[in-house]
Amino acid sequence: MVLNIPAQIGTRIEDIDTPCLLIDLDAYERNIRRMADFIDAHGLRHRAHAKTHKSADISLDQMAAGAVGVCCQKTSEAEALVHGGVRDVLVSNEVINPNMIERLAAMATQARVMVCVDDIDNIDDLSAAAARYNVELGVLVEIDVGAGRCGVAPGEAAVPLAKKIHAAPNLVFKGLQAYQGKAQHVHDYDERKARIDEAVAATRRTVEQIAQAGLSCELVAGAGTGTYAFEGKSGVYNELQCGSYVFMDADYQRIAMADGQPIDDFENSLFIYTTVMSKTKADKAICDAGLKAQSVDSGVAVVYGRDDIEYVGASDEHGVIADPDNVLALGEKLRLVPGHCDPTVNIYDWYIGVRNGVVERILPVTARGMCL
Amino acid sequence: MVLNIPAQIGTRIEDIDTPCLLIDLDAYERNIRRMADFIDAHGLRHRAHAKTHKSADISLDQMAAGAVGVCCQKTSEAEALVHGGVRDVLVSNEVINPNMIERLAAMATQARVMVCVDDIDNIDDLSAAAARYNVELGVLVEIDVGAGRCGVAPGEAAVPLAKKIHAAPNLVFKGLQAYQGKAQHVHDYDERKARIDEAVAATRRTVEQIAQAGLSCELVAGAGTGTYAFEGKSGVYNELQCGSYVFMDADYQRIAMADGQPIDDFENSLFIYTTVMSKTKADKAICDAGLKAQSVDSGVAVVYGRDDIEYVGASDEHGVIADPDNVLALGEKLRLVPGHCDPTVNIYDWYIGVRNGVVERILPVTARGMCL
Repeated sequence: MVLNIPAQIGTRIEDIDTPCLLIDLDAYERNIRRMADFIDAHGLRHRAHAKTHKSADISLDQMAAGAVGVCCQKTSEAEALVHGGVRDVLVSNEVINPNMIERLAAMATQARVMVCVDDIDNIDDLSAAAARYNVELGVLVEIDVGAGRCGVAPGEAAVPLAKKIHAAPNLVFKGLQAYQGKAQHVHDYDERKARIDEAVAATRRTVEQIAQAGLSCELVAGAGTGTYAFEGKSGVYNELQCGSYVFMDADYQRIAMADGQPIDDFENSLFIYTTVMSKTKADKAICDAGLKAQSVDSGVAVVYGRDDIEYVGASDEHGVIADPDNVLALGEKLRLVPGHCDPTVNIYDWYIGVRNGVVERILPVTARGMCL
Repeated sequence: MVLNIPAQIGTRIEDIDTPCLLIDLDAYERNIRRMADFIDAHGLRHRAHAKTHKSADISLDQMAAGAVGVCCQKTSEAEALVHGGVRDVLVSNEVINPNMIERLAAMATQARVMVCVDDIDNIDDLSAAAARYNVELGVLVEIDVGAGRCGVAPGEAAVPLAKKIHAAPNLVFKGLQAYQGKAQHVHDYDERKARIDEAVAATRRTVEQIAQAGLSCELVAGAGTGTYAFEGKSGVYNELQCGSYVFMDADYQRIAMADGQPIDDFENSLFIYTTVMSKTKADKAICDAGLKAQSVDSGVAVVYGRDDIEYVGASDEHGVIADPDNVLALGEKLRLVPGHCDPTVNIYDWYIGVRNGVVERILPVTARGMCL
């Protein structure tokens, strides 16, 4: 095994090896503080989504600022964070494979664990596994409020699931998972708000129908960085699940620009740090961050703080930077803002946290690759 | 640390946890044999590119079939494979960062190491590091034969680099790196061939100009899975660097289809194995392989062997599968062909090798994430 850490504590920023993930610790801490302030001001709960950063350290920073726990998307992701000291986890997703149901239940011997369902038979499997480990699993019914992915239709369809969970041994019905994932990256403010208005109405209706069946939704959970202010002020949602706000990314910056202002002043705190590794042409430079250093699903990375050069293309291990004024030099280092932070983070083993030009924290990406 | 291996030796294929990388061992072995046969038939050398698979086990399989060693794109990738038993490595790329030059030279105490250069001052740095470790580094001059990335212009520009390498202590001038990366995925056969014809002409001219300066190119290296037959029959290239042929991917299959036949009958041997994790809609299913289970730079994954369903979209942890005839069931498992194998492999820690419906080999992705 090669311990391939690109820096040491105390390394000067210009001496960090590349490509790697850099965290601007000042911006990162301000982002955490801003979200905590919003949550406090609106009397909400925040269960920060760890799918973005996959880091136990960052989860604990968020909880120190008031988050009640974390969301994960995968059982193995949750396991990694529980091993890292996080003791309150919602798997905000369905768990279907028998081995993973077993692991989910076993994890509840170590931490408070909740999970989502959208299938009636899945409830039996979760209940049986929880009984085997003599644990309690909190369960949310997932409703599809517009994302078109998992979840039953809002309204009546959620009621039999809620009732069955309520009746199932070792399960506790906790409420609704109602995340509108497709609205997060809609660039137009009015359209984004309209989609969440619809989601809020559908969620409110579902809460009421479940209430008519004699059950109450202790938790109504959802929201992401692109829309959380809408859900947070809805009077329906009470537990928000924002993740990307700690880092931001190029696509969220484009949303901000389309709106004419950043999303609640969240700042880019995560960067792909890269070196110009070839400069044989006057009008371009080749850097060492390509497709294996980023996910390009939302577009390629953007050079941070520079409008004289542009990252224009990626192959596996190379990035092409247009350099029309021939200003870049071999060995020069640049910060790139990832197009999409979540799948980009999932490539790396380490975060290098810098402040005042020096490495101050090195954080493992605890749950990197934990996709089971 | 969570040891998150999706199967054990002997696990039946239907019980493997997902998402994960599956290798069809029969198809994989046939691919290795087919390339070895081509190399033998044409009197060439094959230095299999490990950037595709990042696996020491696969490198050793390729060498057992006749490959002379491996190519890597990164120093840390090479280190990981050297630790895994591979003792002949070309870093088919430039190494610029001082720490990585140090590590490259240190690695040469354990293995035969070659590297590429396209900058005159870089030669001094490599020579000094090699002298410090009392090792010899083989060096290729990289020429840009159309990819538009690294490399000096073909012809005269390569000569001073070759001469300086030849004169530098602890360096040995070995020849040319002349890879036309942009031609590999050109879908039209005639256009693909035309680009390699140009690359061959430029490379031949460069070899001749270096010869006029009194130096000989022992190695003329390049070629990938999309074009290797052209370089292999050129009479100029003598060491091929194919990688993707062991696995193939959806984009290479599209090239094959555009040509009317598979590329030399190479088969899809690598799959993303996935489970239907939500089936609340009649016309679609949600599977557990999304953006964190693949790189979508060359398009999303393709469902293998099925034309009744289609993988149509990915979000972080979910894939949307159009299911117009409502044939999929919750818990059903599917094989997906990755859009692009190299950056997809770089996400995973393990390959699960199957034969006759049972797990036979579990291979670590030895150099996963080794991007320094």
